[in-house]
Amino acid sequence: MKPVMRKIKLVLQYDGSKYHGWQYQINGISIQEVVEKVIFRVTKEKSNLVGSGRTDAGVHAEAQVAHFVTRSRMSEAAFLRALNSLLPRDIAVKKVEVVSPDFDSRRSAKRKIYRYTILNHEHPSAFDYGHSMYIQFPLNVEAMKRAVPHLLGRHDFTAFQGAKSDVKTTVRELFRLDIERKENFILFHFEGNGFLKYMVRIIVGTLVEVGKGRRQPDDMKAILASRNRKKAGPTAQPQGLCMVEVVYSGDGVGGEDDE
Amino acid sequence: MKPVMRKIKLVLQYDGSKYHGWQYQINGISIQEVVEKVIFRVTKEKSNLVGSGRTDAGVHAEAQVAHFVTRSRMSEAAFLRALNSLLPRDIAVKKVEVVSPDFDSRRSAKRKIYRYTILNHEHPSAFDYGHSMYIQFPLNVEAMKRAVPHLLGRHDFTAFQGAKSDVKTTVRELFRLDIERKENFILFHFEGNGFLKYMVRIIVGTLVEVGKGRRQPDDMKAILASRNRKKAGPTAQPQGLCMVEVVYSGDGVGGEDDE
Repeated sequence: MKPVMRKIKLVLQYDGSKYHGWQYQINGISIQEVVEKVIFRVTKEKSNLVGSGRTDAGVHAEAQVAHFVTRSRMSEAAFLRALNSLLPRDIAVKKVEVVSPDFDSRRSAKRKIYRYTILNHEHPSAFDYGHSMYIQFPLNVEAMKRAVPHLLGRHDFTAFQGAKSDVKTTVRELFRLDIERKENFILFHFEGNGFLKYMVRIIVGTLVEVGKGRRQPDDMKAILASRNRKKAGPTAQPQGLCMVEVVYSGDGVGGEDDE
Repeated sequence: MKPVMRKIKLVLQYDGSKYHGWQYQINGISIQEVVEKVIFRVTKEKSNLVGSGRTDAGVHAEAQVAHFVTRSRMSEAAFLRALNSLLPRDIAVKKVEVVSPDFDSRRSAKRKIYRYTILNHEHPSAFDYGHSMYIQFPLNVEAMKRAVPHLLGRHDFTAFQGAKSDVKTTVRELFRLDIERKENFILFHFEGNGFLKYMVRIIVGTLVEVGKGRRQPDDMKAILASRNRKKAGPTAQPQGLCMVEVVYSGDGVGGEDDE
């Protein structure tokens, strides 16, 4: 009798500081590779772990979603415990779930939520340095907020896309971009159907220039229309970025390819 | 005219993850060395930076206090800004203050406050791994609390002292040891006139054994009386420890040498 293959969905939390990003790299250690190695130790099977999207080197995740298939008949709870007992302290499995064979962590994703954190204070802090970008100059949050309406909705985000990208379409829909000041931090909450490579970080880098008064909120319109990366601001540092949530629904309609 | 020497007090915050502790080391980079180098870049003078006490490799500080003397006539605010602009992101100066020549960051210290953090939850967290010790087994906080009265007050803490120590006296006074559960964490708040090398970490390591039911709260009495390191529990991991505050008063009476 052929053993039954099961599809397993993992919700993963990681501190990306020490990794070369999510995806397998020849010249560095990736989150994907570490988790695949641990799955191998538990199941004795080589697995192909498919993430909902890549995160770049230094970027963190509160809830990255990934799937793999296995012959293992281990229970969800036993899987969770076994994986966590073998993973390094900066990667943790938050949830293990047996899912339908139709589920695809990348293609079934409907929405993705990212958060970008800026420490915006006269003095730096020795903590949080791995989880925020430090900007001493007091940013004008209200000006940054006025730039947001131009970005919301369905646009060709080519101007906010990093180089070396290989996607079918550069059109993405941005559902939400909330900016809030919280103590010494400024938080940017992004929600969209998908994000191009570096898209969140380039938008933040451009908004920071608005916050510094170097650009006007309305400049966003022309930057988007230009479809020219050079018109946008710099790419914000990776350590301020965190993948917060990947939202799925049962209807099988997918989001767009992710950065 | 001889230039006026001024004594400068620094309040320093650091993430000790990447350092070989506070004190200058031949074979590794210390917080002291990094700050001295930055002071040199600002003042063009070699300084001897005296800390309130050593912190070990991997141990953090919210407010370590240190002093040095300088001919520089730079204002406190200018010093603060200059030092922070040159320090790496994991070390920050919180305060610069010109103090009396009598002030000594180590000898004038009256009390020291440390916090130890344990992540005590069924599942690990990928964040906080550099700032807590993870213990999966649910610890009995009430049992640990019952051990505390034996430790409070003035004792010879030899049993809770790491090896290779060279202090005049092993008697220390512990004013406060509060243990509290806060969400998934257990926090230990220590306040004393000084702490021997590894003292906080060995006390925590021993209390953890009480929390696991391997020792009784009343065992503390015999451990203290033994003055034998082997009778106490293991040394808890460094990354859970943080120097929270050094308290000074004007009367010039000092605390004890610190770990």
